[in-house]
Amino acid sequence: MIYITRKEHFNAAHKLFHSEWSEEKNLEVFGKCANPNWHGHNYYLFVTVKGEVNPDTGYTVNLKELSTIIRVHITDKLDHKNLNLDVDFMKNRMPTTENVAIAIWEQLDAHIQKLGGMLHCIKLCETDNNYVEYFGGS
Amino acid sequence: MIYITRKEHFNAAHKLFHSEWSEEKNLEVFGKCANPNWHGHNYYLFVTVKGEVNPDTGYTVNLKELSTIIRVHITDKLDHKNLNLDVDFMKNRMPTTENVAIAIWEQLDAHIQKLGGMLHCIKLCETDNNYVEYFGGS
Amino acid sequence: MIYITRKEHFNAAHKLFHSEWSEEKNLEVFGKCANPNWHGHNYYLFVTVKGEVNPDTGYTVNLKELSTIIRVHITDKLDHKNLNLDVDFMKNRMPTTENVAIAIWEQLDAHIQKLGGMLHCIKLCETDNNYVEYFGGS
Amino acid sequence: MIYITRKEHFNAAHKLFHSEWSEEKNLEVFGKCANPNWHGHNYYLFVTVKGEVNPDTGYTVNLKELSTIIRVHITDKLDHKNLNLDVDFMKNRMPTTENVAIAIWEQLDAHIQKLGGMLHCIKLCETDNNYVEYFGGS
Amino acid sequence: MIYITRKEHFNAAHKLFHSEWSEEKNLEVFGKCANPNWHGHNYYLFVTVKGEVNPDTGYTVNLKELSTIIRVHITDKLDHKNLNLDVDFMKNRMPTTENVAIAIWEQLDAHIQKLGGMLHCIKLCETDNNYVEYFGGS
Amino acid sequence: MIYITRKEHFNAAHKLFHSEWSEEKNLEVFGKCANPNWHGHNYYLFVTVKGEVNPDTGYTVNLKELSTIIRVHITDKLDHKNLNLDVDFMKNRMPTTENVAIAIWEQLDAHIQKLGGMLHCIKLCETDNNYVEYFGGS
Repeated sequence: MIYITRKEHFNAAHKLFHSEWSEEKNLEVFGKCANPNWHGHNYYLFVTVKGEVNPDTGYTVNLKELSTIIRVHITDKLDHKNLNLDVDFMKNRMPTTENVAIAIWEQLDAHIQKLGGMLHCIKLCETDNNYVEYFGGS
Repeated sequence: MIYITRKEHFNAAHKLFHSEWSEEKNLEVFGKCANPNWHGHNYYLFVTVKGEVNPDTGYTVNLKELSTIIRVHITDKLDHKNLNLDVDFMKNRMPTTENVAIAIWEQLDAHIQKLGGMLHCIKLCETDNNYVEYFGGS
Repeated sequence: MIYITRKEHFNAAHKLFHSEWSEEKNLEVFGKCANPNWHGHNYYLFVTVKGEVNPDTGYTVNLKELSTIIRVHITDKLDHKNLNLDVDFMKNRMPTTENVAIAIWEQLDAHIQKLGGMLHCIKLCETDNNYVEYFGGS
Repeated sequence: MIYITRKEHFNAAHKLFHSEWSEEKNLEVFGKCANPNWHGHNYYLFVTVKGEVNPDTGYTVNLKELSTIIRVHITDKLDHKNLNLDVDFMKNRMPTTENVAIAIWEQLDAHIQKLGGMLHCIKLCETDNNYVEYFGGS
Repeated sequence: MIYITRKEHFNAAHKLFHSEWSEEKNLEVFGKCANPNWHGHNYYLFVTVKGEVNPDTGYTVNLKELSTIIRVHITDKLDHKNLNLDVDFMKNRMPTTENVAIAIWEQLDAHIQKLGGMLHCIKLCETDNNYVEYFGGS
Repeated sequence: MIYITRKEHFNAAHKLFHSEWSEEKNLEVFGKCANPNWHGHNYYLFVTVKGEVNPDTGYTVNLKELSTIIRVHITDKLDHKNLNLDVDFMKNRMPTTENVAIAIWEQLDAHIQKLGGMLHCIKLCETDNNYVEYFGGS
C-alpha cells in the first residue's frame, strides 16, 4: 500500500452566516467571516489516494487522470465562484472549511474508485494558518 | 540607506466587471474574474520602507509602529471585506491587483513619512502565481 | 470525525546542555546546539484537534477560541523567551523539539477538551529541515 | 512514542519508459514523462522515525546521525544522478515517485533500527503538486 | 508605471559539460553538475513586465495573454525536456541558469511588446537556494 | 550584466537592549525583543552578486566558491551563536536585522570582488514577516 497526493487550488468567495440567526448572533459566532458582502480565499486542496503500485507502470493511479477528475468534479465548479450561491453540491450547507472538505470527499469518492485507487484524505487549506483533514465518514 | 519590508495579509472578495460593458465583453476581458457572485483571494502585502539606520536603536523604522499603521489604514479596511463594495478608498476603481496596490500606496505614503522613513515599494500578491509592485507615481 | 489544524509561531532561545556532563560530552552529543551563550529558532507550531462538525455552525471547534487558548497557554509563555530559563512548564526539561512538543501537549490537552474537541497532534517545527509530531502518551 | 522527521533533497534526471512497449504506448501511459532525452526534478525527501524520547538527551534519535545515514545511503547516490542509469538500487525499477520512495525505505530501514528508532514513513515530493508517502510493506 | 509578475514552472534535465575540455577539467569547474548521464531540476520562472495601468480595465497587461505567450514560447519548449539536446534556442549554449534566463529574455522580449508592456526582468530559480535575475542587455 | 543569488541560513540568539538605557526605556523601544534572557531566530540570508557571464563556463561566479566564502566568513561565525556575545564583527553593534545585514556586507564585499563579481545586495530575513535589504554604503 502506498499513498499518493495531488495538490490543486481554487479561489472563491464565501460568507459564514446563519439565516435564522440575528446579525448579532452571526457576528458573535462567525466574527469577520459573517461580513454581508462576502470575503474570499485562495484554497489549496490536497487529495490523497491509497492503492497498490502497478508493477508495469510503477503508478498507483495515473496522476493526470486524477488531476482531470478533480478539475471536472471540483475545481471547475469552485474556482472563481461563490461557495454559498454558485455551487450545486454546497446548497444548504454552511461553507466552512470542514463542510467544503466533506462535500469534496462526497463528490470524488466514487470517481477515484473507478481509477483503481481508494480516496484516503481530503486536506483543504483556507489560509496559511488553518486547514482541515477529512478521512471519510466510517 | 537601507530597505526594510513588513509582510501583512488580508482575505477579501472582489470581481472585475465594467458596468458600462455587456456581459460578453466583461467575460472576454476579465474571464472567470467577472463572475457576478464574486470570488476572493488571500492577499499578501509587502510594504518596503527606505531610510537611514538610527545609531541608537539600530532601527530604520520601528516595525511595530509600521505594522500598526498598515493595520489601521489598510488591513482593518480590507480584511474579510468586499473590495468593490466595502472599501472607501476603492470606490469607483476596478479592484485589479494593480489598482489595489496603487490605492494602498496612496493611503500609506504620508503616514510612513511621519514614522521617519520613505515608502519605497508596495508589493501585492493575489495568488502564488502573480503579483504587482508599485514604486510610486513620479 | 474531522481534523482541524491551527498554525502559530514563536521565536525563542535555547541550548541543549546537560549540567552533569563535561563540556566535551555535551559537545559530542549536542554539537553546535550546546553553545554556552545560546542560539535560537523561529518555531512553527501546528495544533490539530479532532471532533464532530456542529450542524448549526459547520465548525468542529471555533478557531478563534482555539487560537486564544494557544496564545494564553503557549505562545505568550514561549515567544521571545529563553526555553531553558524563562518557561515555568519547561523547568528541568531539556528543551529539545521532542520535549517542547510533549510539554505543549500537556499544557493544551485539558483546555481543548473544554472547547469540545480532542487534541490529536502537536507538530513542532524547529527549522525548515526537522520537526516532531506527538500524538499523546497512551 | 514520538515521531521525528528530517527533510533532505536531491536533484535528479529520469524518464518513465517501458522498454517492451511501443513509443506510442509509452506516450499514452506516461505522457511528457516519456521524453527520450530525459527530464528532471528537485526531489524533497522527508524521513520520519518513531521512538521513545531518551530521558538524558531529550532526543528520539540524533538528527545529525540520521542525516548522515540518509546522505551516505540515499542522497549521495541520487543527487545529480540519473535515476534510470546511475543508481544501483533502482536497477530494473521504473523510477516513478512511488518506486523511488519504496526503494529508499528498503535502503534505510535496517540502518535506522541501528540508530535506535523505527522507520515510520518515507515521503517523497517530486513537484510542488504531487508527493508519495510509504509506511512500509506489512 | 507599475510592475506585474507572472510565475510559471518547468521540469527539465541538463548537464554542464564543455566538450572541448577533459573530464577532469569539467569535474573541477562544474562538479556534480557535469554528471555524464544528466540530472535535473524543477525550474521556477518569474516574468516581470512594466507598463501603465489601462484606465478601463485596471490591467497593465492581461495576465492570461501573458501566460499564454510564456507557455507557447518557453514552457512548452522546456518542460519535460533536456536543455542541452531538445531546445532549439539553447543550441550551442551551456545551460547554466544564467544562460537559460538570457535565452528566455530573448525569446519573450518582442512578444511582450506586442502585448503593450515592456519586459523588465526574467528571474529563474534552479533550486530553493539559487536563482538568477536578468534585466536585459543594455 | 546578470544578478545571481545564493541563499544560506543560520540560527542565532540575540536581544535588543541598550545598556545605557533603563529597563523601561528598553522595553518601550524594543518591546519583547529586550527580554534579558535572549530569544532567537532562524535567519535566511540572500547574497546577490552581479557580473558578466563567462562565455566558457556560462557562470557569473562559481556558486560553490560563493557558498564557501559565505560559510567561512559569515555562517560559521553566526550559526548557533549569540549575536550580542559571540561574534567578533558584531561587537558594540545593536544586533538588529539592519545592523547584521550591514555587517555581513562589510565582511563579504572584498571577498566577492576576488571571485570576479560585485556584491549587489544583502537580504536578511529575521522572520517570515520582515526582512531587510542593503545595497552598500555609497
